[in-house]
Amino acid sequence: MHLFYQPNKNLYELDEEETRHSSKVLRLNSGDIIHVTDGKGLLQKCVLNMHKNKAGYEVIGSEMIPRRSFAVHIAIAPTRKAERNEWMVEKMTEIGVERIDFLITEHTNPETLNRVVNLNRLNRIAAAAMKQSQQFYLPEITVNNKYDSFIRSRQEDVKLIAYVPDQNTVEHVFSKVRKDSSTSLLIGPEGDFSEKEIAFAMENGFSTVSLGPTRLRTETAAIAGCHAINLAQILN
Amino acid sequence: MHLFYQPNKNLYELDEEETRHSSKVLRLNSGDIIHVTDGKGLLQKCVLNMHKNKAGYEVIGSEMIPRRSFAVHIAIAPTRKAERNEWMVEKMTEIGVERIDFLITEHTNPETLNRVVNLNRLNRIAAAAMKQSQQFYLPEITVNNKYDSFIRSRQEDVKLIAYVPDQNTVEHVFSKVRKDSSTSLLIGPEGDFSEKEIAFAMENGFSTVSLGPTRLRTETAAIAGCHAINLAQILN
Repeated sequence: MHLFYQPNKNLYELDEEETRHSSKVLRLNSGDIIHVTDGKGLLQKCVLNMHKNKAGYEVIGSEMIPRRSFAVHIAIAPTRKAERNEWMVEKMTEIGVERIDFLITEHTNPETLNRVVNLNRLNRIAAAAMKQSQQFYLPEITVNNKYDSFIRSRQEDVKLIAYVPDQNTVEHVFSKVRKDSSTSLLIGPEGDFSEKEIAFAMENGFSTVSLGPTRLRTETAAIAGCHAINLAQILN
Repeated sequence: MHLFYQPNKNLYELDEEETRHSSKVLRLNSGDIIHVTDGKGLLQKCVLNMHKNKAGYEVIGSEMIPRRSFAVHIAIAPTRKAERNEWMVEKMTEIGVERIDFLITEHTNPETLNRVVNLNRLNRIAAAAMKQSQQFYLPEITVNNKYDSFIRSRQEDVKLIAYVPDQNTVEHVFSKVRKDSSTSLLIGPEGDFSEKEIAFAMENGFSTVSLGPTRLRTETAAIAGCHAINLAQILN
């Protein structure tokens, strides 16, 4: 399936980058069948219509792909390297994630956040990963979330914060997931959450969880946490 | 714990890069306590002795950290981008892996393999990830493995190959792992394994497994597979 992304379902043409990809890489021509999603569950079967380097299309079939029976929401204090934040978004999207929120924590420098988290780039990366992994919902990505108000506004069924004061006393995230529920998982910065932040999350309904016996970098923790929640939903 | 890596246990000094890291980044001085591992389970507590930009050390305590009760071996057809192979090695090392073998398959270009898999670089990346995640065994990495002879020589307790002809008929890798056993998992190239390669693996004791409902890139599949095996061992 040649899957393309067009968020505006009334436009009936691919953007410049996807047009180039369809003609130069996939070598598609007028009359070829493509699929187009709006990243909100709509999957359209279309006939391509190449005209003067514009890739238009005519819709010949359409269906709404239902959302999954569960939702995975990951909130992360960004790492200091832009590329690590970008690959984290790419990998979580491939594995399956509904929301990714970047947090400003006590140990996050807000200037760093603006330098290492570029929302346009992240949305483009997520869209490419969505198509590549043949999914039809684009994860919602937000940046610049203030920790306290973000924590207070969480509405998920299960709210978890990765934190390991003593591995033996904290359950693994996998064991805390409830079938067909929404799960929020918070991942701390390199200097970890502060004691105050942990306490504030716990006052607001979050439970501490472990991500396993080895010490993971922020971006690896995010992928591992996202993957563990998906596995718990798929396997249980 | 300031953990350093010195594979030669009779040398008692850090290499140039770690010397620089100890003095410039960590700002350690003579008399400071460091820990040194040889990547083969030896963990030494040492007193640092800085002398003319050479970081020597005296061992004041020593223990052997036992290996885990299970082993995770991942064999992968490399992706076409060097950086994706490198991050795959970094992330699997953080999560926990005993062996990483790069395979030449029907859909692998051997010239590509030499360009995108540099064993020295991969070993340096694995050593850095081992230290960062506070582990004491360096994964063994091999490249240039011919598919047939590699498959024939596998001795692991559980042998698995990721391949999804029809998701509903294949069990998830998580369900196939046996407690305290060694597991070998093969991950195919972008064009996937050939039918012949799948058949050959199955004749040699491999079972096909799924890595979940979404289509993953090679490097994401390797991380997800490695993580799922670790989770199955830790949680069961």
